[in-house]
Amino acid sequence: MINLFYKKNKNIKLIDILNLLKLENNFKNSDFKINDIKDISSAKKNDITFFHSIKYKHILAKSKVSFCLTTKNLLKFIPKSCEPLIVENVLVSLSRITTLFYPNSTNDNFDNNVSILSESKKFKNIKFGNNVLFGKNIKIGKNCKFGHNSIIESNVLIGNNCSIGSNVIIRKSIIGNNVNILDGSIIGKKGFGFFPNDKKNLRYPHIGLVIIEDNVEIGCNNVIDRGSLSNTVIGMNTYLDNLVHIAHNVKIGKNCIIAGQVGFAGSTTIGNNVMIGGQSGISGHLKIGDNVKIGGGSGVINDITNNSRVMGYPAKEIRKFIKENK
Amino acid sequence: MINLFYKKNKNIKLIDILNLLKLENNFKNSDFKINDIKDISSAKKNDITFFHSIKYKHILAKSKVSFCLTTKNLLKFIPKSCEPLIVENVLVSLSRITTLFYPNSTNDNFDNNVSILSESKKFKNIKFGNNVLFGKNIKIGKNCKFGHNSIIESNVLIGNNCSIGSNVIIRKSIIGNNVNILDGSIIGKKGFGFFPNDKKNLRYPHIGLVIIEDNVEIGCNNVIDRGSLSNTVIGMNTYLDNLVHIAHNVKIGKNCIIAGQVGFAGSTTIGNNVMIGGQSGISGHLKIGDNVKIGGGSGVINDITNNSRVMGYPAKEIRKFIKENK
Amino acid sequence: MINLFYKKNKNIKLIDILNLLKLENNFKNSDFKINDIKDISSAKKNDITFFHSIKYKHILAKSKVSFCLTTKNLLKFIPKSCEPLIVENVLVSLSRITTLFYPNSTNDNFDNNVSILSESKKFKNIKFGNNVLFGKNIKIGKNCKFGHNSIIESNVLIGNNCSIGSNVIIRKSIIGNNVNILDGSIIGKKGFGFFPNDKKNLRYPHIGLVIIEDNVEIGCNNVIDRGSLSNTVIGMNTYLDNLVHIAHNVKIGKNCIIAGQVGFAGSTTIGNNVMIGGQSGISGHLKIGDNVKIGGGSGVINDITNNSRVMGYPAKEIRKFIKENK
Repeated sequence: MINLFYKKNKNIKLIDILNLLKLENNFKNSDFKINDIKDISSAKKNDITFFHSIKYKHILAKSKVSFCLTTKNLLKFIPKSCEPLIVENVLVSLSRITTLFYPNSTNDNFDNNVSILSESKKFKNIKFGNNVLFGKNIKIGKNCKFGHNSIIESNVLIGNNCSIGSNVIIRKSIIGNNVNILDGSIIGKKGFGFFPNDKKNLRYPHIGLVIIEDNVEIGCNNVIDRGSLSNTVIGMNTYLDNLVHIAHNVKIGKNCIIAGQVGFAGSTTIGNNVMIGGQSGISGHLKIGDNVKIGGGSGVINDITNNSRVMGYPAKEIRKFIKENK
Repeated sequence: MINLFYKKNKNIKLIDILNLLKLENNFKNSDFKINDIKDISSAKKNDITFFHSIKYKHILAKSKVSFCLTTKNLLKFIPKSCEPLIVENVLVSLSRITTLFYPNSTNDNFDNNVSILSESKKFKNIKFGNNVLFGKNIKIGKNCKFGHNSIIESNVLIGNNCSIGSNVIIRKSIIGNNVNILDGSIIGKKGFGFFPNDKKNLRYPHIGLVIIEDNVEIGCNNVIDRGSLSNTVIGMNTYLDNLVHIAHNVKIGKNCIIAGQVGFAGSTTIGNNVMIGGQSGISGHLKIGDNVKIGGGSGVINDITNNSRVMGYPAKEIRKFIKENK
Repeated sequence: MINLFYKKNKNIKLIDILNLLKLENNFKNSDFKINDIKDISSAKKNDITFFHSIKYKHILAKSKVSFCLTTKNLLKFIPKSCEPLIVENVLVSLSRITTLFYPNSTNDNFDNNVSILSESKKFKNIKFGNNVLFGKNIKIGKNCKFGHNSIIESNVLIGNNCSIGSNVIIRKSIIGNNVNILDGSIIGKKGFGFFPNDKKNLRYPHIGLVIIEDNVEIGCNNVIDRGSLSNTVIGMNTYLDNLVHIAHNVKIGKNCIIAGQVGFAGSTTIGNNVMIGGQSGISGHLKIGDNVKIGGGSGVINDITNNSRVMGYPAKEIRKFIKENK
């Protein structure tokens, strides 16, 4: 799927990576053509991946990936079938070679391939407002509506019976059936990922997508960033209220209810049937279980197990919160 | 007023409602034509209303409404002049029969009756920018300004001397005199109300309006949802800062000052002369008195009496908050 | 610089100010032509300034300003070279005479001098989308991009290699080189400053700018208000995530990282290399030092010294926060 949205450089050899990272060439197979760069859970044979945290050692152990960026300290976790490339800063190196594979992945300039939609021959039973801009190679199902001034950038896929509001911007996204995206929301922007540098920060590449499943509703003036190496996902029949912020790589399950002004930091996973009250914030890299209820205004900084009810900042078991605040 | 915005089906008989809800017909008058569906406080003779919480028993006791959706347990509170319809889930049933009266009330597709404003003969001394879209049957006073790309949907009423910014969207709203609505704000969207359902949530109908009184200012990128059965109201001379979220049915009094990123959950009432600091959140169905001051970042989860000063999460008397946090 | 953006009335005499404020004329030089109105730190000889808080007495002591609005109680701090004008409410009087100097400073109506950009002869190597509106007297460097429906109001200055997203609005701003402003952000709106009045609030004039330095990135749907008498400043290489709110006169240093939904109240100063987690709120008129880290969800209500790490509401030393919340 990713290749639809990002043009991949197909001729990256191991030697190109070694040269870029200024690594010594101790490899017999340095002319080997590497297929793609992926995170550990999706990388396959002939791909390159990265391993920077012991947290992922079990996934790496089962992987068939051929090459892996890592550090000296983590070397012992690399499986035999994988050739390690030892670097000082895994994520910075990752960023640089991702740009090698995907030269346009740090660039989010406006899509200048769009044109104003003025007839609907190509799409079935579509309704569209004034000044709607469509990029190239867009695929849209039946019975969709696009409000005034909306911008659907090139390669976006949209299912049947979707209603897109006015002033909406959608890029790098795959959208299911019966999805409503309300006015002013911005879907698929690059995430807020970079390596700080005193003179000019180094942008982290974003070659992921936003995947919005069937029956989802997205409120007004929301911002949903696309993934960096994986995708940002909004699960089936999940509803988001207004002014919600969803950072890169967040995965929200099915049947969730997310109230106004909630914010999710990057790479957090939310289970199914989760309810989150207004203005709550969920830190990055957390795992929130199924059927969890989070009271309004909470600040969640730890994982939450299935079926829990929490509230507070930091969020704690709700009865404890109520007792402490009597 | 509501009839201007929502087309009402005028031929709903009691029997139609009984059939839709699959209720037994024990009524002699099942051919009775019901006038409208309203909440308890506004329902009149020949209307149907709903009673799902003991909280409203005093209002119901004085009501002259003819029919009322309720549960077995609440039956004893129904006055003699009113015929009860016993259902399992009052709000789901309400939702379904509201859609019977107002078939378009759950639909918020873009207004495709608009056209680009290109002359001002119809309106007195109006100034407007590029690509301004006006729907049908709009009424506007004197000396108003409409910024670029703004969308004023059909039937909206606006008073004199209003300044509407650019990229603003207004629907289902009645706006007074001397009102400023700044860039990017979205006024009158349907609220975030629905009944969760594993496969596809059931939308709660929104047949209310947004009423903005004289001299109000609304900041940038705000979202103000319209009411469901009642209206959302912003009182005279109240000022809202940027990125504020106001849910359905919220009623804010006169001369209030609401700082940036404040959020209001549904159906809460705010008195007059209330000041709310930035990023505060107010839970739903609360009553905040007159002259209340709420410190920035507060999370208000209980009613607040007149003249109180509160701060904290949950919000408490401000001297207590300061003492506890020394 | 300010004169580029605000037309100053050059013929304001002392007597005009006395008349407006209904003050007695005890001055020999009441025909004196006053040059400008400025805050204490920038006011010069022949200007008028205001002094309403003892906090600024050291700055005033060194000032060469000729006239100063103040109260009876603060009279003793006025230097000999300065003639005091005694008023009851300094800020209200300030507001009224600022409007005398800058008649358009409380008005933020849309810029009706714009026109749709359709050729780029005037600007070097510029790329622009559909329906881009440019005001008069705009200056733009090389290699800039302007997304669809963006509005650049009159007099704005933009450097080289900037990428402006779609649906962006920029007014009263000076923007450096290599700046990215993402979709839906609104830069340079008047701030949320006014004097409450039961019938109609009195607007505080905003004759400041937004200054965005080199290499800055501003996320989506942000709102950055311009200064009132001073400027709002975003320092070099600072990155802002989505849905961030920055009030008037805020000054953010270099190399800062501001996560999603953070809010800054007015006139606060942030040092260099400051990191602020998502949804944090910073109260007004504070001084946050260099190298400070503020955890997500914090509410900062006091100054923070250099190199501190804080978290909580109210924010405290992070180890204390963690210990208290174990």
